[in-house]
Amino acid sequence: MGIVFAQMSVSVDGYAGHPEIEKTWEYLGRLTSWVHDLPTWRDRQGMTGGTPGPADDLVAEEFQAGAYVLGRNMFDFGEEPWGTNPPYRAPVFVVTHRPREVLHKEGGTSFHFVTDGLASAVEQAKAAAGDRSVGIYGGIGIIRQAIRDGLVDELHLHQVPVLLGEGIRLLDELGAEAKELVATRTVAIDGVNHLYFRFDRPS
Amino acid sequence: MGIVFAQMSVSVDGYAGHPEIEKTWEYLGRLTSWVHDLPTWRDRQGMTGGTPGPADDLVAEEFQAGAYVLGRNMFDFGEEPWGTNPPYRAPVFVVTHRPREVLHKEGGTSFHFVTDGLASAVEQAKAAAGDRSVGIYGGIGIIRQAIRDGLVDELHLHQVPVLLGEGIRLLDELGAEAKELVATRTVAIDGVNHLYFRFDRPS
Repeated sequence: MGIVFAQMSVSVDGYAGHPEIEKTWEYLGRLTSWVHDLPTWRDRQGMTGGTPGPADDLVAEEFQAGAYVLGRNMFDFGEEPWGTNPPYRAPVFVVTHRPREVLHKEGGTSFHFVTDGLASAVEQAKAAAGDRSVGIYGGIGIIRQAIRDGLVDELHLHQVPVLLGEGIRLLDELGAEAKELVATRTVAIDGVNHLYFRFDRPS
Repeated sequence: MGIVFAQMSVSVDGYAGHPEIEKTWEYLGRLTSWVHDLPTWRDRQGMTGGTPGPADDLVAEEFQAGAYVLGRNMFDFGEEPWGTNPPYRAPVFVVTHRPREVLHKEGGTSFHFVTDGLASAVEQAKAAAGDRSVGIYGGIGIIRQAIRDGLVDELHLHQVPVLLGEGIRLLDELGAEAKELVATRTVAIDGVNHLYFRFDRPS
């Protein structure tokens, strides 16, 4: 069985979004600019070119997931811009209250709408992924809930060197109980810190 | 002229303290346990022994500061436990509203009480430090204010692998204006991430 990881780009003060939609777009632009010239990311967006290297290796490794989990807001946000050939190329389980038929896209991506909760979506994603990992790709709310509910094995923070000063933090509303982590990988590439942690739980 | 750095141990979700005093002690215990077996830290507390290595080198490097700046709460907190031979062994400038005579201690530490504000305390510390750096050692409020006021050249986060879930974050109330950083050093030692940043300002 593969592991379940959650990944997100955050500022040094921990922000990943903003209550105002224009600010959210601005934040996403700043916080994800480190992927824009990476061949794996460009390929997944239907573009060519880019500069290979260790940052691309990290992104490619994350895209080796056998299935993904998304929140409904993130899906609504992405459905249009992802177009006919979304970047996932694997089954994606979307946590939602609205039942909907499976949506098959080009390139291997299929969206499965799960109405019985996040734990069920993660279970279904694990079954679909087999030996490969499951990637929880956002948004913020679904990653927080997955951490609270003990569904995440690994947390990947791509920490961009800026203090944003306000907004919505990724690591908020996690419950008051302390959760021990183990730092499994710490690497700076082109000024971005990639901080990987494993949740230290009795297995 | 040396640089001005601020340093603090924080959790992965950014907490460094807690509104309840007992919780603050618990947090300080967890967040600073990585220094307790380091020879430099032990020596500064009047103890012997400890295990040398790269973490000790980082602490020793920070203690090469030629002067320090502290907030008044931090001084009040520390005055008793630091005893007759405090760990600083250099002039310490305490930002306070209450005038007080210079307090000379053993080992080279002297406490200077500055009543005309943080910028003045930093200026006086720089003058005292000469070519050596100035360390802003806390508490949380004085580091936030120094960042807001553009008085910090380098930020050192000693990031301990735990999600604490609640408390007081170091990097809060910094002002809504984004501040660009440059990651200057990123190293994991015995599971603690040491993340050093330079503020990217026009000089």
